[in-house]
Amino acid sequence: MSSIAESVGVIGAGAMGLGIVRSLLRGGFGVRVRDIRPQAEDDAARLGARCEPSPAAVARACSITLVVVVDRGEIEDVLFGRDGVAPALAPGSLVLIASTIAPDDIADFAARICATPGELVDTPISGGPQRAHDGTMTMMVAGSAAALDRCAPVFAAIAGKVFPVGGRPGDAARFKVINNLLAAVNLAAGAEAMALAAKAGLDPRQVFEVIRASSGASWIFADRMPRALAGDYAPRAATRVLRKDAGLAVDFAARHGVAAPFASAAQAAFAAAVAAGFGEHDDAAMVEWNRRKAGL
Amino acid sequence: MSSIAESVGVIGAGAMGLGIVRSLLRGGFGVRVRDIRPQAEDDAARLGARCEPSPAAVARACSITLVVVVDRGEIEDVLFGRDGVAPALAPGSLVLIASTIAPDDIADFAARICATPGELVDTPISGGPQRAHDGTMTMMVAGSAAALDRCAPVFAAIAGKVFPVGGRPGDAARFKVINNLLAAVNLAAGAEAMALAAKAGLDPRQVFEVIRASSGASWIFADRMPRALAGDYAPRAATRVLRKDAGLAVDFAARHGVAAPFASAAQAAFAAAVAAGFGEHDDAAMVEWNRRKAGL
Repeated sequence: MSSIAESVGVIGAGAMGLGIVRSLLRGGFGVRVRDIRPQAEDDAARLGARCEPSPAAVARACSITLVVVVDRGEIEDVLFGRDGVAPALAPGSLVLIASTIAPDDIADFAARICATPGELVDTPISGGPQRAHDGTMTMMVAGSAAALDRCAPVFAAIAGKVFPVGGRPGDAARFKVINNLLAAVNLAAGAEAMALAAKAGLDPRQVFEVIRASSGASWIFADRMPRALAGDYAPRAATRVLRKDAGLAVDFAARHGVAAPFASAAQAAFAAAVAAGFGEHDDAAMVEWNRRKAGL
Repeated sequence: MSSIAESVGVIGAGAMGLGIVRSLLRGGFGVRVRDIRPQAEDDAARLGARCEPSPAAVARACSITLVVVVDRGEIEDVLFGRDGVAPALAPGSLVLIASTIAPDDIADFAARICATPGELVDTPISGGPQRAHDGTMTMMVAGSAAALDRCAPVFAAIAGKVFPVGGRPGDAARFKVINNLLAAVNLAAGAEAMALAAKAGLDPRQVFEVIRASSGASWIFADRMPRALAGDYAPRAATRVLRKDAGLAVDFAARHGVAAPFASAAQAAFAAAVAAGFGEHDDAAMVEWNRRKAGL
């Protein structure tokens, strides 16, 4: 008990990152954290993590650094911006990318990290903040066998299910883009259905209960609709994030020469909701956006 | 044990009807059956049901007759066609409509049955053939309080969850149309995602396992994709049925002045699949249709 636990770095302490920090601490790891928002760092510190002044400082202190920021641009900053992770990597250091970004961008980041003494592992996550907090997320992981072996205790601390889906960074991101296509469609369509039901005079709570027990049920419908019913749009998963993910799915389909009308419809719906001012709201606000469209 | 069990009539012994027959028999009811397909009647007889030569004969023999045929036209025939149910109804006879049709059509049928000594109850079902067989379907029910009371033992035999959603026939059909909007979208989008993943070189079985454990999961995705992975398109739920249901959702949205782009996309996808020859296949064949579209 007096041994100093191995430290894992977490860059990005938002809804998902904070849950990961908690799960790592519960698993016995020391945790070093960096977030550009002081409030997020305070939250992490309160859980028992040690905050560092920069991504570089995290990478110097930890042999495994997990990055869980929102998009490609933020990862670019964290890895290769001022006081970034890349120049701070020691031989054998691993950089895990848990964000959902385009598979080609993951492959590109992996190639650039390959030019350092470090190595990149592709580790997208699914399940939302509650499961991040509980350490029961689903992870898709892709990277060298040696790197995946070394990460196994970290995966075990934060995920309930780990799917090794390939040997090269980018392989896991492909699965994640496909999954999030469906998360985006199922949510946007669920919001369409709830607003239509309300317009037809049906009781929204009863509609929720019936669908949850019927063939129209989906994971994200069951997860988000209670927030919509409560009018609780404090962001756990912001609408702009699923807009980004729907866009990734549309780009992925185009890259592979496949028409994807549902992904396109989801991209259009989320983009319109963001344009209407719901970008920073929880994505359950898609119901509110649909209600307004329906004149409610 | 020597008492003669009350008889319940079932008109339509397809995938759902046959499961209902089995659940009623298990619940101790005598069951009278009519189907225009001799094979379906043979299947019902083998379970222990007694076949009747016409809908009228079923209605004369039973105080509760459940109709579970596919669409409005078939119900019209069963109720008001040659040797139909309506003229055979005795005072207090109940006609349950378990098919998914437009709420306005249910209300219309109810009004016309009201002109007989009988009464109509709106009882759409959800869950698929396996749950019909197990007696664990979800039912949405709407009708007079007295009629719903009388039906309670029948509902208990065939459904795991019963949602009383209104006092007038048509109320339950509204919930069902909304639910099936989502079933149709979640399935069509799931098929789009599976074909896109295959085109991108991902292993379909692994994609299924990952999504089932992730935020893109839906009930119908988990139910149908194993059939698609096995290439098993023997119809348990035919593609033309969800085409009809997606069309009902589009009509319902139009009637209420609401744009429903996901319902429209589902209608287009199912209509195209039916046009391509998949109408009588299981609706899991939406994956095969999407694979062809993707050039696989």
